[in-house]
Amino acid sequence: MGDPTFFLGIDGGGSRCRARLTDESGKKLGEGITGAANIRLGLDAAWSAILGATDQALSEAGLNADILNRIHAGFGLAGVCGPADVDFLLSGKSPFASVRVETDAHTACLGAFAGGDGGILIIGTGSVGYALIGGVAQSIGGWGFEISDDGSGAAMGRAAIRAAVRAHDGLSAASGLTNAVLAKLGPPARIVEWASTAKPGNYASFAPLVLEHALQNDTVALEIIRHGAARLDAHIKRLLELGAPQICLMGGAAGAIEPFLADWARASLVAPKGDAMDGALLLARRAA
Amino acid sequence: MGDPTFFLGIDGGGSRCRARLTDESGKKLGEGITGAANIRLGLDAAWSAILGATDQALSEAGLNADILNRIHAGFGLAGVCGPADVDFLLSGKSPFASVRVETDAHTACLGAFAGGDGGILIIGTGSVGYALIGGVAQSIGGWGFEISDDGSGAAMGRAAIRAAVRAHDGLSAASGLTNAVLAKLGPPARIVEWASTAKPGNYASFAPLVLEHALQNDTVALEIIRHGAARLDAHIKRLLELGAPQICLMGGAAGAIEPFLADWARASLVAPKGDAMDGALLLARRAA
Repeated sequence: MGDPTFFLGIDGGGSRCRARLTDESGKKLGEGITGAANIRLGLDAAWSAILGATDQALSEAGLNADILNRIHAGFGLAGVCGPADVDFLLSGKSPFASVRVETDAHTACLGAFAGGDGGILIIGTGSVGYALIGGVAQSIGGWGFEISDDGSGAAMGRAAIRAAVRAHDGLSAASGLTNAVLAKLGPPARIVEWASTAKPGNYASFAPLVLEHALQNDTVALEIIRHGAARLDAHIKRLLELGAPQICLMGGAAGAIEPFLADWARASLVAPKGDAMDGALLLARRAA
Repeated sequence: MGDPTFFLGIDGGGSRCRARLTDESGKKLGEGITGAANIRLGLDAAWSAILGATDQALSEAGLNADILNRIHAGFGLAGVCGPADVDFLLSGKSPFASVRVETDAHTACLGAFAGGDGGILIIGTGSVGYALIGGVAQSIGGWGFEISDDGSGAAMGRAAIRAAVRAHDGLSAASGLTNAVLAKLGPPARIVEWASTAKPGNYASFAPLVLEHALQNDTVALEIIRHGAARLDAHIKRLLELGAPQICLMGGAAGAIEPFLADWARASLVAPKGDAMDGALLLARRAA
């Protein structure tokens, strides 16, 4: 009998990288967590995050780097856009027996439905839908703040800021929300400066304020959330049309938005069976 | 009797600078036109545009630079945000007997109502409302593409592009407009690249496509235009509330949008009595 084989699942998101190590039977041996593994931040940064999280998982398992070449790994990484990115990532850098790479949305969907058919809708700073139907992947929306990402935290934050600027100029009604935004950002001349360097994450930082005021029946906040929720309903409708039998919501704004979705959309929602590391482990097992 | 005095009106916009020279009686002697005089492009560029247009006007009048120190000038310049900008512009550079500087919106409004009360709504790449009531200036909107400028060419172009991306992903209905946008820009992966360097003017270049399709009853185009027109109605409502008895529409998109404004808003519209150079000449006369 040869040396035992191991499986590693990596969930490399925009802000953190998590690793889970299992034995051949699927039993969890250890986990680790480091910083962002988005490959847009560079090859060295991505590998540093991945190997750092792996080291922690090995350490928790009482193992060391000697066994890296007996590990079959699956990576779900933010920022992976195609085969060129995968080739770039794997160019002579991998210490593992095998590596399969997909986007973090792909491994999240694999994990959520344990490899079965289903769709996920991620609602965080951005928004994106993803379905795996009979092994075929389809991505919906998620093209970024300027041209897409309806219903996302960034989109709702931007809508709140635009409404606040309108209210300041007497172009639409002021409300608790618009007053709160102006109290935070100052008058429009200051907001223009702020906006000149603001990233989607800066806009998304106003989404909790929108949700908070919506729960107090602020009409401006409710209009923003209802508009966003209707756009997210359309994502769910599309995922169902594509053949996803059920949908998992994910992302930092999912819980807050869920009550505003249409009844038929909420009826399609289920809790995920596993997380993105579980999905990455499935990827690794299928490759091995 | 001393040497005769002259008056010069400068309309320095974001893409061109125009000059008009008159005698003491207000009789037009000559005109000139050069490139952008937006002071955000730098002091030398602004003065070069202003003096170039002035040279042309002098030449048309059969005069030369000897009389510059007998000219009282009024400048309406894009990008002027406050007294610091005016001080900066005039710091030892002016060859004129006197200069008064205001924004191009201010001189446009002065010219449109010949110095009387009124409001203007400029609808071009951006959108901004401006009123002069009893000599008091008020500006409405116009804080730029990201946080303001509702109903502008850039806002309508962006809405068309976002609708096209949604249609591509099956999130909303396709139409002649969304097909035309995708034919021009390619699939979303290409639009993401385009958007990474796109300026408001690039978005605004899609506004004529929206108007063209709206006239063919394209439902997506009509929704975009009606939404923008409703926001522009709000600008007109606000200008009337502030005390403007009548409104002049201006800017490259004004003619196309006008039929979509509310009847009560259209009832307030009048043709301008003069242009921004006339307004700048009024400024110069008042200072002299």
